[in-house]
Amino acid sequence: MPNPRDLGLPFRGQPGRFNAITDVPGVQVGHVTLISGEGPTAVRTGVSAILPGGPGPQRPQVPAAWFSLNGNGEMTGTTWIDESGWLTGPIMLTNTNSVGVVRDAVVAWGQREGWDALWSLPVVAETYDGFLNDIGGFHVTAEHAFTALDTATGGPVLQGNVGGGTGMIVSGFKGGIGTASRVLDVPVPCTIGVLVQANFGAREDLMILGVPIGLEVPEKLPQRGPAERDGSIIILVATDAPLLPHQLKRLARRAGLGLARTGSVAHNGSGDLFLAFSTAVPRIEAGVEHWSALPQATLDPLFRATVEATEEAIVNALFAAETMTGLHGRTVHALPQDRTLDLMRRYGRLRG
Amino acid sequence: MPNPRDLGLPFRGQPGRFNAITDVPGVQVGHVTLISGEGPTAVRTGVSAILPGGPGPQRPQVPAAWFSLNGNGEMTGTTWIDESGWLTGPIMLTNTNSVGVVRDAVVAWGQREGWDALWSLPVVAETYDGFLNDIGGFHVTAEHAFTALDTATGGPVLQGNVGGGTGMIVSGFKGGIGTASRVLDVPVPCTIGVLVQANFGAREDLMILGVPIGLEVPEKLPQRGPAERDGSIIILVATDAPLLPHQLKRLARRAGLGLARTGSVAHNGSGDLFLAFSTAVPRIEAGVEHWSALPQATLDPLFRATVEATEEAIVNALFAAETMTGLHGRTVHALPQDRTLDLMRRYGRLRG
Amino acid sequence: MPNPRDLGLPFRGQPGRFNAITDVPGVQVGHVTLISGEGPTAVRTGVSAILPGGPGPQRPQVPAAWFSLNGNGEMTGTTWIDESGWLTGPIMLTNTNSVGVVRDAVVAWGQREGWDALWSLPVVAETYDGFLNDIGGFHVTAEHAFTALDTATGGPVLQGNVGGGTGMIVSGFKGGIGTASRVLDVPVPCTIGVLVQANFGAREDLMILGVPIGLEVPEKLPQRGPAERDGSIIILVATDAPLLPHQLKRLARRAGLGLARTGSVAHNGSGDLFLAFSTAVPRIEAGVEHWSALPQATLDPLFRATVEATEEAIVNALFAAETMTGLHGRTVHALPQDRTLDLMRRYGRLRG
Amino acid sequence: MPNPRDLGLPFRGQPGRFNAITDVPGVQVGHVTLISGEGPTAVRTGVSAILPGGPGPQRPQVPAAWFSLNGNGEMTGTTWIDESGWLTGPIMLTNTNSVGVVRDAVVAWGQREGWDALWSLPVVAETYDGFLNDIGGFHVTAEHAFTALDTATGGPVLQGNVGGGTGMIVSGFKGGIGTASRVLDVPVPCTIGVLVQANFGAREDLMILGVPIGLEVPEKLPQRGPAERDGSIIILVATDAPLLPHQLKRLARRAGLGLARTGSVAHNGSGDLFLAFSTAVPRIEAGVEHWSALPQATLDPLFRATVEATEEAIVNALFAAETMTGLHGRTVHALPQDRTLDLMRRYGRLRG
Repeated sequence: MPNPRDLGLPFRGQPGRFNAITDVPGVQVGHVTLISGEGPTAVRTGVSAILPGGPGPQRPQVPAAWFSLNGNGEMTGTTWIDESGWLTGPIMLTNTNSVGVVRDAVVAWGQREGWDALWSLPVVAETYDGFLNDIGGFHVTAEHAFTALDTATGGPVLQGNVGGGTGMIVSGFKGGIGTASRVLDVPVPCTIGVLVQANFGAREDLMILGVPIGLEVPEKLPQRGPAERDGSIIILVATDAPLLPHQLKRLARRAGLGLARTGSVAHNGSGDLFLAFSTAVPRIEAGVEHWSALPQATLDPLFRATVEATEEAIVNALFAAETMTGLHGRTVHALPQDRTLDLMRRYGRLRG
Repeated sequence: MPNPRDLGLPFRGQPGRFNAITDVPGVQVGHVTLISGEGPTAVRTGVSAILPGGPGPQRPQVPAAWFSLNGNGEMTGTTWIDESGWLTGPIMLTNTNSVGVVRDAVVAWGQREGWDALWSLPVVAETYDGFLNDIGGFHVTAEHAFTALDTATGGPVLQGNVGGGTGMIVSGFKGGIGTASRVLDVPVPCTIGVLVQANFGAREDLMILGVPIGLEVPEKLPQRGPAERDGSIIILVATDAPLLPHQLKRLARRAGLGLARTGSVAHNGSGDLFLAFSTAVPRIEAGVEHWSALPQATLDPLFRATVEATEEAIVNALFAAETMTGLHGRTVHALPQDRTLDLMRRYGRLRG
Repeated sequence: MPNPRDLGLPFRGQPGRFNAITDVPGVQVGHVTLISGEGPTAVRTGVSAILPGGPGPQRPQVPAAWFSLNGNGEMTGTTWIDESGWLTGPIMLTNTNSVGVVRDAVVAWGQREGWDALWSLPVVAETYDGFLNDIGGFHVTAEHAFTALDTATGGPVLQGNVGGGTGMIVSGFKGGIGTASRVLDVPVPCTIGVLVQANFGAREDLMILGVPIGLEVPEKLPQRGPAERDGSIIILVATDAPLLPHQLKRLARRAGLGLARTGSVAHNGSGDLFLAFSTAVPRIEAGVEHWSALPQATLDPLFRATVEATEEAIVNALFAAETMTGLHGRTVHALPQDRTLDLMRRYGRLRG
Repeated sequence: MPNPRDLGLPFRGQPGRFNAITDVPGVQVGHVTLISGEGPTAVRTGVSAILPGGPGPQRPQVPAAWFSLNGNGEMTGTTWIDESGWLTGPIMLTNTNSVGVVRDAVVAWGQREGWDALWSLPVVAETYDGFLNDIGGFHVTAEHAFTALDTATGGPVLQGNVGGGTGMIVSGFKGGIGTASRVLDVPVPCTIGVLVQANFGAREDLMILGVPIGLEVPEKLPQRGPAERDGSIIILVATDAPLLPHQLKRLARRAGLGLARTGSVAHNGSGDLFLAFSTAVPRIEAGVEHWSALPQATLDPLFRATVEATEEAIVNALFAAETMTGLHGRTVHALPQDRTLDLMRRYGRLRG
């Protein structure tokens, strides 16, 4: 499927080869997608694994930081990220009710991999898919998490109705996983990659590159009811630029500015949680860590790239997701692409 | 001067009578504007006082919270706001080098007013006007602060090159003070008022209601040099809705989403500091405070109003500010209004 | 067993009837203790449930806040507590590797109880018991969590080797669950109750009421090795005093001062996570919440009570815990009580 | 005057040559002490300057972080420290009403020194001396700040009634400036230096090395009244150990544990603000910063040293401060040293 950029949406900046988080060397993504059944036990969910990098028997560790724009959600492991500045192990995305099983599964997976650690504090985040998925049925298992981890790979990333994003909804359209990236020449050659599990927003607020799509396509989900605005979005920002943990927190905070460009006002019911990490790991010599870091005065291009890639990743999720029928026969329609492109053209925001 | 909304810019939502922070009953604004001299000692600066409300011999106190989107700036008094949930006394806005004199002036003013307090921790915030103003000359005095406080009043608010905003710059256009408001029916009848001292942004990033004005009007300030992006923005959010301090922090955080809509990526050099307060003060009975608060599930209209009013206040500052020549004969031009309106029309974003 | 206070340790302040967190009306505690097997599969662990109060089909909600003194630990659900100011549902304590299973169990238990909520974000905290317990065996199940919840009750609280505290260690002595309380007359009649799951500290640092017990009883665990200082402590502070969420954060922070009195320097490997909640729930009338709150100027007695009850709860855990042999035949000895009392007397810190 | 350690108080750990913050190479301290007049215009105040190091025309910058244990106080410049991880320029300590004048004076001093910076955000902290000092008279001037900065030096540090600490009170005894240090061999040879401006605490809470001095010497200040507990303490932690900003935040937080050992419960009226910085500045090469940092697993000795040096610095302030008569003829007595030493001996806490 052509992506929005290829369809003529004038996103600024230069994406990487895959326009994906995997453009950051070493980053791997694995999805397990669960679609089965219908009616009251329809399963429309999954789990995604994002590995910050590097193989080997050692537990992977990368500098990281996180930010909560609106905290109606769960991301385990963040207290230790705040304290230590390190992300240890993978990041997992799943539905709200499966955070626990996936969390303990990561511990078990680390034991199996032979991590040389007394304990671990896995990072698992969630958004709520209970409109389309029998979330009360707890259909995600430890085995699903293992598979997502074992099959994670670089290269192109599946988007839309996959992995943790399988049953998600954005502004009343079908949402899910989206990704985008930016490559920069300054201050150093580096890449910013973003991956979102998008499940947020009210219809009326949706904007694409400044165009009020939500106002122009107002038809809402009749069945959704009170929970319409109660989605969430998890945003992961990866980079190979050398940054200290407190600088990564600045990147994480910028994800919210990209989210704002799509119209979000960060509803009360939304868990808008962002995590940024760098694959530029300090080397250890004679018991002392040796870090490289970009000077603060050079960070603006990274800030802009983070904002832009976040915005594009959300739009990519909307364009990649397909109409889905799930729990109790409920249907969530995909973003109407032709109509959207017409609107983009009418508002002067379509190339070609 | 007609404001952008009257010129046809399709801002959403219903503003209050003055489309200003003073639409929140009791809120008062006073400006002292200092424009004199030229060349190396050109004075283009000032001080603004925002009083949360109520006269009387008691030191005014209102529930409040603050948020730093990017902390390259100063807002004194925030540690106590975080701890206590209270804003005590006025909020003052001035230039970077005059924070101290204004801060101590507020202490002295409180003594003069007869505040029954052992000590006070005034709130003074700043943005940098050293491109147009002889900021190293320390031209703001305690008397100026007293005057801003003593002349503060409700009703229409002067915008643009006034008060603390006198010498400010937005995306290479003349910036300064801007304000806007929203009145809401739900969850309760209430008003959200926003006032900004706007001094931020790179030209290329400037967006107005989704239209890339900065890209379409690329001519930059030749003299600005390295400091181009190094402005800041102070955003004050006032409301008469009853909210607890931790809820006001949620409003403060939303100001950043409105800022993002104008294109900001929160540059490293920017002090993007936001403060929210409520004029709905708890009553004290038998030694216990009695607070009203809106339930969290009802806050979304307030969140949207904060985002919208912030966006509009920034645009209002840009439309109100006039071309200014200052330090060393440097000139900063106002936003070209006709050209901007033409662009808004071309992008389908002008009413009528 | 007589508690330290009855043995003559001169703790200040007046405890409640049970000198326990359950002195706060409505607070209930349930423990499931798992002790079985030996050698490489010795099970020495458990799960504790603390219910903030009130029965009924509605999901219990109380004002709450949390604080991390050192974040090498997990407490799920904290992001929403920060954002909303509410604790929803119970607090669960268990071992590090069982956080996930207990977390999802709380979701399932809520479904079973008929909570009228689309989703929940359970609070589960942990400390590491892998020295005595086969933590890699994942012996805690959802059923154990259900039982802890279903059997929670008011009244006296079991301490020492019970529930989540079963396999814990304090300064190389056997640790575990401890609790204490204070009743206050001012500013209003109220109770502060503290419960700890204590698993922290190096021997040399241990102080009891200012007496350097750790230096006087230096014999360490020969087998413990690198993990000696790598414990953690979870501290829960309950009160029936009416407090706003940001005020409860102040109480949570004071727990660290009580911890400091026992000698802790908050080791890098320690997850020192504190949560405070109030059972004084606002009433809702005409869609608006009505809160009572103690004025900030009256809070000092509550601060002192929190510090004192935390210190005493930790000492209570040490006195209640009994010598345990567990994983691989390792033995952790209880605090030698007679010797400790002798030392207390020698340092002038024993009544009678 | 012999310091408490020389008098036999059994502080643990090895202090540096001066047992002062200046044991960290490069750190300089300057005091201006203002003692004049009596009755209603008695001046008992001052200003202290702490320079993190290094001479030269460049604005000094060192990695830094801060923490607020209880935020009833002011420390300007902290928002930028949080954001950037850098402390730029000196740290100034003075009385509550003089924060502004000292703050702007630092800007002017930087101009005079020729700092190559467009703007600066000075760090000025305060405690309240209005019981002994005519604080409403605003007796500190920019010239006093210049002098403190210009006369700052390494070597022994004056303590007690000097500089910003001139009029301060601790637990109803005379307080003021105190300092202490620790030298460490592990994980690398390094020094931790602490300096406090101590003005906190209620009599009954005062503990010295675990001995309840406050309960044993209960006579309070008859005149003090409602403000008795409303002091504050500023704690500065300096080190030459290489640490990243987020690691320095961990040091800053430990200062509170040292404070707790002296009995503080962090009263509502207290501004307990702590700042930590490292003089190990990264070098810049080819536009990239190169940082060294101690691995987190090696930090425990630094944590303990911070706790211990903080405790000792507070006790040093108490022993160094002398009885003072000030505003309206009020007298605050020094800690009775002989009686205190007797008590320390009685409680088994005096060497020799």
